[in-house]
Amino acid sequence: MKIQYLVPGPMSKGPMGKKEVLRRQALLNQWAFPGTEVTVVDVPEGPASIESAYEELMAVPATLKGIQEAERDGFDAVIIGCFGDPGLEAARELVEIPVIGPGESSLLLAAGLGHHFSVITVLDSLVAPQEQQAFRAGVLAKLASVRVAEIPVLELMNDIDASRRRVEAVGAEAVERDRADVLLLGCMTMSFLGISDEVSNRLGVPVINAGRAALKAAEGLVAQGLTHSKKAFPTPPKLRKKQSQPEEVLA
Amino acid sequence: MKIQYLVPGPMSKGPMGKKEVLRRQALLNQWAFPGTEVTVVDVPEGPASIESAYEELMAVPATLKGIQEAERDGFDAVIIGCFGDPGLEAARELVEIPVIGPGESSLLLAAGLGHHFSVITVLDSLVAPQEQQAFRAGVLAKLASVRVAEIPVLELMNDIDASRRRVEAVGAEAVERDRADVLLLGCMTMSFLGISDEVSNRLGVPVINAGRAALKAAEGLVAQGLTHSKKAFPTPPKLRKKQSQPEEVLA
Amino acid sequence: MKIQYLVPGPMSKGPMGKKEVLRRQALLNQWAFPGTEVTVVDVPEGPASIESAYEELMAVPATLKGIQEAERDGFDAVIIGCFGDPGLEAARELVEIPVIGPGESSLLLAAGLGHHFSVITVLDSLVAPQEQQAFRAGVLAKLASVRVAEIPVLELMNDIDASRRRVEAVGAEAVERDRADVLLLGCMTMSFLGISDEVSNRLGVPVINAGRAALKAAEGLVAQGLTHSKKAFPTPPKLRKKQSQPEEVLA
Amino acid sequence: MKIQYLVPGPMSKGPMGKKEVLRRQALLNQWAFPGTEVTVVDVPEGPASIESAYEELMAVPATLKGIQEAERDGFDAVIIGCFGDPGLEAARELVEIPVIGPGESSLLLAAGLGHHFSVITVLDSLVAPQEQQAFRAGVLAKLASVRVAEIPVLELMNDIDASRRRVEAVGAEAVERDRADVLLLGCMTMSFLGISDEVSNRLGVPVINAGRAALKAAEGLVAQGLTHSKKAFPTPPKLRKKQSQPEEVLA
Amino acid sequence: MKIQYLVPGPMSKGPMGKKEVLRRQALLNQWAFPGTEVTVVDVPEGPASIESAYEELMAVPATLKGIQEAERDGFDAVIIGCFGDPGLEAARELVEIPVIGPGESSLLLAAGLGHHFSVITVLDSLVAPQEQQAFRAGVLAKLASVRVAEIPVLELMNDIDASRRRVEAVGAEAVERDRADVLLLGCMTMSFLGISDEVSNRLGVPVINAGRAALKAAEGLVAQGLTHSKKAFPTPPKLRKKQSQPEEVLA
Amino acid sequence: MKIQYLVPGPMSKGPMGKKEVLRRQALLNQWAFPGTEVTVVDVPEGPASIESAYEELMAVPATLKGIQEAERDGFDAVIIGCFGDPGLEAARELVEIPVIGPGESSLLLAAGLGHHFSVITVLDSLVAPQEQQAFRAGVLAKLASVRVAEIPVLELMNDIDASRRRVEAVGAEAVERDRADVLLLGCMTMSFLGISDEVSNRLGVPVINAGRAALKAAEGLVAQGLTHSKKAFPTPPKLRKKQSQPEEVLA
Repeated sequence: MKIQYLVPGPMSKGPMGKKEVLRRQALLNQWAFPGTEVTVVDVPEGPASIESAYEELMAVPATLKGIQEAERDGFDAVIIGCFGDPGLEAARELVEIPVIGPGESSLLLAAGLGHHFSVITVLDSLVAPQEQQAFRAGVLAKLASVRVAEIPVLELMNDIDASRRRVEAVGAEAVERDRADVLLLGCMTMSFLGISDEVSNRLGVPVINAGRAALKAAEGLVAQGLTHSKKAFPTPPKLRKKQSQPEEVLA
Repeated sequence: MKIQYLVPGPMSKGPMGKKEVLRRQALLNQWAFPGTEVTVVDVPEGPASIESAYEELMAVPATLKGIQEAERDGFDAVIIGCFGDPGLEAARELVEIPVIGPGESSLLLAAGLGHHFSVITVLDSLVAPQEQQAFRAGVLAKLASVRVAEIPVLELMNDIDASRRRVEAVGAEAVERDRADVLLLGCMTMSFLGISDEVSNRLGVPVINAGRAALKAAEGLVAQGLTHSKKAFPTPPKLRKKQSQPEEVLA
Repeated sequence: MKIQYLVPGPMSKGPMGKKEVLRRQALLNQWAFPGTEVTVVDVPEGPASIESAYEELMAVPATLKGIQEAERDGFDAVIIGCFGDPGLEAARELVEIPVIGPGESSLLLAAGLGHHFSVITVLDSLVAPQEQQAFRAGVLAKLASVRVAEIPVLELMNDIDASRRRVEAVGAEAVERDRADVLLLGCMTMSFLGISDEVSNRLGVPVINAGRAALKAAEGLVAQGLTHSKKAFPTPPKLRKKQSQPEEVLA
Repeated sequence: MKIQYLVPGPMSKGPMGKKEVLRRQALLNQWAFPGTEVTVVDVPEGPASIESAYEELMAVPATLKGIQEAERDGFDAVIIGCFGDPGLEAARELVEIPVIGPGESSLLLAAGLGHHFSVITVLDSLVAPQEQQAFRAGVLAKLASVRVAEIPVLELMNDIDASRRRVEAVGAEAVERDRADVLLLGCMTMSFLGISDEVSNRLGVPVINAGRAALKAAEGLVAQGLTHSKKAFPTPPKLRKKQSQPEEVLA
Repeated sequence: MKIQYLVPGPMSKGPMGKKEVLRRQALLNQWAFPGTEVTVVDVPEGPASIESAYEELMAVPATLKGIQEAERDGFDAVIIGCFGDPGLEAARELVEIPVIGPGESSLLLAAGLGHHFSVITVLDSLVAPQEQQAFRAGVLAKLASVRVAEIPVLELMNDIDASRRRVEAVGAEAVERDRADVLLLGCMTMSFLGISDEVSNRLGVPVINAGRAALKAAEGLVAQGLTHSKKAFPTPPKLRKKQSQPEEVLA
Repeated sequence: MKIQYLVPGPMSKGPMGKKEVLRRQALLNQWAFPGTEVTVVDVPEGPASIESAYEELMAVPATLKGIQEAERDGFDAVIIGCFGDPGLEAARELVEIPVIGPGESSLLLAAGLGHHFSVITVLDSLVAPQEQQAFRAGVLAKLASVRVAEIPVLELMNDIDASRRRVEAVGAEAVERDRADVLLLGCMTMSFLGISDEVSNRLGVPVINAGRAALKAAEGLVAQGLTHSKKAFPTPPKLRKKQSQPEEVLA
């Protein structure tokens, strides 16, 4: 199967660059089941990273365009490469192939591994959006806390060991004070740091890498022949009637 | 005080036209307290009407721009002229003046008038988004139902009497089957039809006009010297640090 | 419009005296929109202040009488001058004009300004009643905590600066430990101390003055031609049938 | 042990009369464990029956007085003889002996007999108050519905067989449509009709007689040496400090 | 009435021995209402004590057998002598007489004594199961916390005073940090230590002895002629059709 | 990877026989990713099928033994072959390899495909247990309903077409009346009937085959190197201390 992992921002133009796009592609293909081919692409415009509701929403138009192209290009599923799942519901209205949000996927995965999970996010500005994500995924009842590492996304890779130590310290608080028994790395750059196993070993609880979780969710859906419910995410009425292009909806 | 009512789509270019923009402005000024001046503007691009998550998100970029301009232009508050409150949280991250979402405002108003309220929306595709809105507003516990009139936004004004009868029939179901004791007109065009009093009289329950509710919420906040919590809606970190323009956040 | 603010206890006979009744009337009129006239009255009997469920309930009979008189006297709305909203539901059963509870009004206002709010109350004995108030208002999901200033109502005005510092300290705990991003002054005497702006500036979150919030809610409802749902708060059956005076219901 | 069952209204002066007071006393003593003596008294003033929030609150002052007297007279526990539990929390603030609300007691009993229970109440005006009661008792999660028999309290005994048939019909709807597997008779006069066994046999689900449930709860608490938590229901602060009589709290 | 208290493990063969079985029987009879006779029996096989979901489930087969025998032997009710209520729902499917779970009984009792209760359990492995118990009982909304004494069941009686001090310390944390106003001893051996009164006196909140609470619940149900709903706990379909012995269900 | 699918009952001795065990093994291997080998085994004793809490619990002892053997035999994960997930939490206490419950897996999968899902179960006696399952999985907030096909497990395969029509009719009710937008086949025999695609096509919503969902969940966990949290499901304390065999826990 062919899966597209779509970065909802111009990563290749930013500080991480094309190299990081390729590194993530290599990792995803390494994690994939035999027969799965993952392509990582970014979008030409949008925020350099997503650390607020504002940036999340500004990432949506280009992302939705990319997802529609992925469907036209014959991909079997698309993963939106941001923990905040920007445009997830809108994308599901527009296409028939499974659209995977790493936030949603890893929240649902976490719910099956323990009783109470905590999300470790980058900055305070994402706490409320991620609580809302847990509500939308349906698992708010198991959310112990969203805790903040206080490292901007674009600085996470500067000193990976320092980032890991910070995530570990914050994770330890979640385990001890909030009674979390599962942790989620609530940011894709954090998930791609390669630190989840070490943090898990030190804290004694599962630590979910959202990128890997999203990939397994995508492969699982495609393998089962399942996709999101069109009753839940109906085609926008104007598109339905006119069989027109999405762009025509816009004046 | 000066309040801007910002239509998050190019209404003046669409079927309702500039005339409708002016009609709404006249009504809002008629509903206003003495000393309040309401200006209605629309944005130059975006969806003709919002009937899906897709259109809601596509309306956001132009809307956020408009809200920032409103602040710069000295308005005391902005109302986002769509029941779905597109971009509400992001807008609150960007500006200091109160940003009012008619959906949120009328949900909170409804919560104070009875025990269980129902929202009457235009199309089935908006049921789930409006349930999520009730969660975000914090009043999901009082939501009896979201019921669907099955009339596209752009057809609501074609035959106002027929629209009213349809709203009434759907409202009656909400009252009888879902035990709603308060009703909300869950669409701005529906709210500006001038039907709420008649529907209220016939069904014997309060019917909330979301436009009027939003105006009173805006006037109330300005009068109290209150605005949204910047702890809840912090300035996006990149903007905070660099004192840069929002546009610079985008690559 | 004419609004009555009814103090549900014999304030003019108590330590605060008639002077305080007039001071509150002056403040409310100062806060009002042009065209609104607020009259503050107290009731001839009842508790000196309300710091328990016991006192709250003992305040009800005289308060209900006063509210019915206010309706007969042509007031457009009545505000029950106690954060605990004593007799709110019963009053709505008895009259048609809007009856505003400052507790309910400010809880709903708070829900629109942030994600999690805390109420600062006077004494421990009011924590549970105020949690139940949040349930009745429908916004329990956003209540971060009810925190206690440990100052009896009748001592709040003895040293206003000391009261402010205490409220500030308790508010800081709510913000830091309970993640509140909005605060409510959960007592009318606290609300009329004139401290909300200073507390807000120091803590960096909105602080809601329940008296001012109630006034804006009352003005908003009257301006919209709305009142509480009689389906939610039906006229007591015996009164309905016999068109008798409320007093006749009592043996 | 000595238990007082306090009717929160002047039943002996009303249509049911002293005879009904004695009939209920006989039944309660018949239901009691060996060694329990139940005394039924009514209060000299208050509503003839309780069918609204208004009447419920008007019943409180005389009821609280009666409960304090019962404690002074050496009763081991008091039952408030109304399903709405008027003044329950306030009474617990005032006395140390257990105060039993039949509504609360039977809701908690119901929660242990099945998964979802329904309350059958007399009139529509009591639906919302009884939903709030389930919240206060902590068992809202198991409340399937409050359904209405549409018989005023004072008419329930006119034709007991007709009342039973009506209760049965409403109970059948609760079982079939709301998936209730336990029913509560949500009114004391309904509970004392002697119909619960027959309704239970016909509908195949337990039917709880609130009077009998309250008695067992009272006997159980006294036998265990337990009473309500004074941390949850603290003595009103003014009474605490001054060791004064409750009446002195009132101006 | 005749009540059986069934220990779901071979207590008489374990370290506590037959002596403890008899001691509990003596206590229960001492706590009983006049006319109640309690027989304590244990089952021949199963876990020595229950400190995990594993042991709880392994206790079930022998316990269910014992409960069916109790019904055949003419007992009026059975109490499952473990706070975890092993097999409660299954037992109710198999028999008509009331089956009492001390966990469920004392959770429901606690809900009527205050606003927020905490359970003090023996080991960390029981926290999640007891949270699920509160959900099943329907009172999760009032659960402040499950706190852990960190004493294995079989060591609780080694030094009763040390156990009491530990329970007290943990209880104090629940009261202060979690705002519990009622405490439950979440283990039968803890309940039979005879420490609840002293802990209650020291902490100033009711402390519920689950054994005594279960006995009162059993006596109350039998006295009211009530048992669990067979609509909620239907006879297993295979047994229903074939009128066969439960054993025949098993291959 | 090697996955064991463990049927928690003696299927090979029952009416479906060894043939059905092999048929399911063939299907699972057909659904598997390349490199996965699935072995289906049943246990030597237990209920012929599981249609009650009683049978579910009676299936546990043999099932737990089987799961421990699977771990010792080197399997990478075990699937408990019953939608009710009998013994799931206990099994996770006993072993380190992932233990998959098809109920939990498919509930979490469903939560990611829509807003509200319904479970179609075989008999009324399983409604309440499956509601509790949704709570334990953390997704109760998205459960629209559990609806009943009224076909005993052992009769489902008698006339597959009739079973499909019945499932379809019940599913249609869930979609229309309960607003479900995703359906789950809440029984493994139903899941292995091969009807999900046809039901999905007819009703226009995704229909989840719990066997296939469980397999993908197992493969996904193994591929990610994840297993359940031992903090959530700790090794039973007695086993931890004594490094003894589980059997020694039992007296």
